Amino acid sequence: MNVNKHTIVALVQDRPGVLNRAVSLFRRRGFNIESLAVGHSETPGISRLTLVVEAEEVEQVTKQLYRLIEVLKVSDVTHDPTVEREMVLVKIHAPSASRPEVVALTGVFDAKIVDVGYNTMIIEMTGTPSKVENFIEVIRPFGVKEMMRTGRIAMVRGAHTHQAPAEAAENGNGHGVAEAILN
Amino acid sequence: MNVNKHTIVALVQDRPGVLNRAVSLFRRRGFNIESLAVGHSETPGISRLTLVVEAEEVEQVTKQLYRLIEVLKVSDVTHDPTVEREMVLVKIHAPSASRPEVVALTGVFDAKIVDVGYNTMIIEMTGTPSKVENFIEVIRPFGVKEMMRTGRIAMVRGAHTHQAPAEAAENGNGHGVAEAILN
Repeated sequence: MNVNKHTIVALVQDRPGVLNRAVSLFRRRGFNIESLAVGHSETPGISRLTLVVEAEEVEQVTKQLYRLIEVLKVSDVTHDPTVEREMVLVKIHAPSASRPEVVALTGVFDAKIVDVGYNTMIIEMTGTPSKVENFIEVIRPFGVKEMMRTGRIAMVRGAHTHQAPAEAAENGNGHGVAEAILN
Repeated sequence: MNVNKHTIVALVQDRPGVLNRAVSLFRRRGFNIESLAVGHSETPGISRLTLVVEAEEVEQVTKQLYRLIEVLKVSDVTHDPTVEREMVLVKIHAPSASRPEVVALTGVFDAKIVDVGYNTMIIEMTGTPSKVENFIEVIRPFGVKEMMRTGRIAMVRGAHTHQAPAEAAENGNGHGVAEAILN
């Protein structure tokens, strides 16, 4: 991974405006968000954000992020051993003549054909960002009509987990109930 | 799909602040963004956003979104035939005794084991949001230590594509070069 790219994982409460506030923090510093994925976590009402940002230094901004009342935990996992995954949906030009070759390639990349039209196919593929790039390179000559990638998600390998302390999950950031109500 | 949930796909230029401005539009109306996925499109420098929002009516906000100079195209695909996909990474408690059962389940759901630790496993699974829900339900009794979902991505089936007109991609939103420079 490029030294100037940082992967940040944050655990946040599902409240209106939290995404806006989080994104604004990076924007204000002029950091480019290369990838952003937001989805439910293991706890109802709490989501996990994975951000990939281009920046020399993210310590200050991760501290500011953690200060937001809805943010329960923030980790810079750039240098941790992680499973990093991305999904892509690609709609390609695939008249019947080229279908066997496409089917063979999807087998090689462990991809799935999720739609077949008159002369199009939609293929779903998941993998590390570099494997996704590799797949797109190989599939591009067929004629890519449309492509859509999810942001990257990154999970630390092994028993280490990225969970918030129990009371933080209850009250928001461990600032306590009173402050949570005030916000 | 719930009638109050809308799936919006937008094609945007990769410029700092665009994500912030897009998210703010929804925020200002008090719409809750249930899911957001941002990733590269088939064209370098242009990304696709898939937003799932809870709202009665999104016509006004999609119009406003389109008015942003970096936004090349916006579609509400809620009622279109789409391929809708989500990816989940789940870290579960998996001591050696329960591994065979976990392996069997991943086979049923066409999921992949992407990491095996001393007594943990990370499983990657993709599918429609409801299939992902189903998988999580089945895997939860093993003990979910950490879960991370990408936002949903949605692609219209068949030959129809969600692409911007060529000059819009060049100049931003078809407003023309002059305006693009002014912004």
